[in-house]
Amino acid sequence: MSIENFIAYNPVRLHFGKGVTDTLGETVRQYGKKVLLVYGKGSVKKYGYYDKVLGQLVRAGLSVREYHGIKPNPVVEDVRKAIALGKANKVEVIVALGGGSVIDSAKIISIGIANDVDPWQFMMWQTMPQKAVPLVNVLTLAATGTEMNAAAVLQNPETGKKVGFVHPLLFPKDAFLDPSFTTTVPKNYTAYGIVDLIAHALEAFFGGGEPSVIDRMTLDIIKDTMEWGPKLMNDLQNVNLRANIMLNATLALNGLTSYGKTGGDWGVHAVGHELSFLYDMPHGATLSIAYPAWLRLQSERIPKRIQKLGEGLFGTSDMEQTIEKLEAFFTSIDSPIRITEAGIDASKKEDILQQMNKNQASGMVHNLNDEDRKQLVTWMM
Amino acid sequence: MSIENFIAYNPVRLHFGKGVTDTLGETVRQYGKKVLLVYGKGSVKKYGYYDKVLGQLVRAGLSVREYHGIKPNPVVEDVRKAIALGKANKVEVIVALGGGSVIDSAKIISIGIANDVDPWQFMMWQTMPQKAVPLVNVLTLAATGTEMNAAAVLQNPETGKKVGFVHPLLFPKDAFLDPSFTTTVPKNYTAYGIVDLIAHALEAFFGGGEPSVIDRMTLDIIKDTMEWGPKLMNDLQNVNLRANIMLNATLALNGLTSYGKTGGDWGVHAVGHELSFLYDMPHGATLSIAYPAWLRLQSERIPKRIQKLGEGLFGTSDMEQTIEKLEAFFTSIDSPIRITEAGIDASKKEDILQQMNKNQASGMVHNLNDEDRKQLVTWMM
Repeated sequence: MSIENFIAYNPVRLHFGKGVTDTLGETVRQYGKKVLLVYGKGSVKKYGYYDKVLGQLVRAGLSVREYHGIKPNPVVEDVRKAIALGKANKVEVIVALGGGSVIDSAKIISIGIANDVDPWQFMMWQTMPQKAVPLVNVLTLAATGTEMNAAAVLQNPETGKKVGFVHPLLFPKDAFLDPSFTTTVPKNYTAYGIVDLIAHALEAFFGGGEPSVIDRMTLDIIKDTMEWGPKLMNDLQNVNLRANIMLNATLALNGLTSYGKTGGDWGVHAVGHELSFLYDMPHGATLSIAYPAWLRLQSERIPKRIQKLGEGLFGTSDMEQTIEKLEAFFTSIDSPIRITEAGIDASKKEDILQQMNKNQASGMVHNLNDEDRKQLVTWMM
Repeated sequence: MSIENFIAYNPVRLHFGKGVTDTLGETVRQYGKKVLLVYGKGSVKKYGYYDKVLGQLVRAGLSVREYHGIKPNPVVEDVRKAIALGKANKVEVIVALGGGSVIDSAKIISIGIANDVDPWQFMMWQTMPQKAVPLVNVLTLAATGTEMNAAAVLQNPETGKKVGFVHPLLFPKDAFLDPSFTTTVPKNYTAYGIVDLIAHALEAFFGGGEPSVIDRMTLDIIKDTMEWGPKLMNDLQNVNLRANIMLNATLALNGLTSYGKTGGDWGVHAVGHELSFLYDMPHGATLSIAYPAWLRLQSERIPKRIQKLGEGLFGTSDMEQTIEKLEAFFTSIDSPIRITEAGIDASKKEDILQQMNKNQASGMVHNLNDEDRKQLVTWMM
């Protein structure tokens, strides 16, 4: 029952609540005058968030260049183009307006501008960055937790990989979390965000090291989300419900759940990434498909841990019941629990298995071999 | 049910676990070569912690001056003397080795050296510091949480005040938490540390703002501590039990429990400080005395909150039962629940009330008036 050695460090300044972007301009100005504003495909314009943010930057006397068009499963080409734009304009600070894909891209852009290295080299862990352009983010989707951590995920269609990079220089300086910026997230993406944050807590729960108070807190994040989540699905404009989910999403991956542990498992994320890569499937949807299958696979290997999960979440130590209740929760918020539900034909089973085997999708703590992946795909179909 | 706006910011790098001070020297060296080592009354020498720390600093090639003799309820005179020593020797970094009193003193020393202002002016909130000498701490007592926050408490015998100051410049740069450095804490101070950390969680629980997942986490800290605490009392050398309490103490006051709230109440601490001031009573002991009385006083004012506490901790919504169970817990670890148990005669009632009224001991959320204080003293005797 010993707590693993760990280092806790998270210098991000989190500004949380309604109206917090009222201080965005002065915050960004601390870091420089030349801003690169990064965003996605324009929904931020449609809903007025872009105007609010740009207004703040302009009123603070900052000069703003823009890179937009970041894709939901972000690709390295966009990052390369944004780096070129940033370098050409000598930008001093980056403002990312969006969800996980935009912020993840902006993190790699921030080290790409500051170091003369192709960004994919970072993603392949071939080069470590020496510095970074300061990054401020304004979050519009509660899901990935990237707003308050030092990780980023990108994909490279050329090499067939979707991978993550983690480095202290990727910590944003400031994160602005106004839950009213998330009230326009459509129902399906609201659900995928809920799944994503629960999956992050689960990855931590199944990570290395013995339980401590952190175990209780990790389960709290899931329990609290299972309480507010379904209410939010029926009341998407409710800022208070959005706030609860937003806070939980940040807490699920800001380092807290790894205190005293060797880190999370991430096997389910590895499996999910392959589905996203193959079919551009939303990240959260891949996780509600992969987690039940993974739990079934692990039920003979780590029964005590899964029983503890069941007791904590559902008051049962019956593993199959726990998995079914988790599936029922995902289904209740309309997130798929089988690949076929996500519109992928059962005939694709071999393609999926090949892709998973090619990249040896596995966990940090609970290894997966070819046989395991075959079993997982069968259960996921 | 809305989450209050808040800013979360905590840049402290926490090094947690057995053997973490092996990197102390290189960590301190980042900040400068001239070190002021601050500690208390010599128990750190008796148990070998001083030798370990000094060895690290010397092997890192640092020059070390020392200020020792910080008292358990730290006084501003020591801080003034240490500031003079630090200025005379142009120290570039401070290492605090000890518990809350040493680290709190070192925080005020760090701004006292860097700004030409008498330290009591900070404590009276008359002047704000502009800079600080970097501070690294090595913790030897799990209790106050000061190792990972920006607060400090000092007393001034001349003015009859024990007060707190909070400022972002008080954040230590690094905190080294090796639970094996706490195995020599005697039984009574181990108990007072447990009470202190529970009291911090309670101050947050009774703070301003509506509950969110943070409420659950705050109760977790108390529940977890009530589980490990009594085990530790019977097994003081157990490093793993020490680790659990140490982690809980840090989490109880590193900012987490205030996310989404307007801040803690701190009325019980205000009352406790007056007892410490009058009788040099250990801080934790004052809190196990003051909390039951405060809960009785509040039971008609905030019944729902106290019922929620009872349900979370003891599975009961009966308020008197909840208070009695809390008292029974404090008694089980030999922390007093009445002033008279702490060796103070009942005849002192008027003195105590006068001192409390003089400083208008009260909370940030739940105000206390003279009548309330009279009631509290009666219940505390």
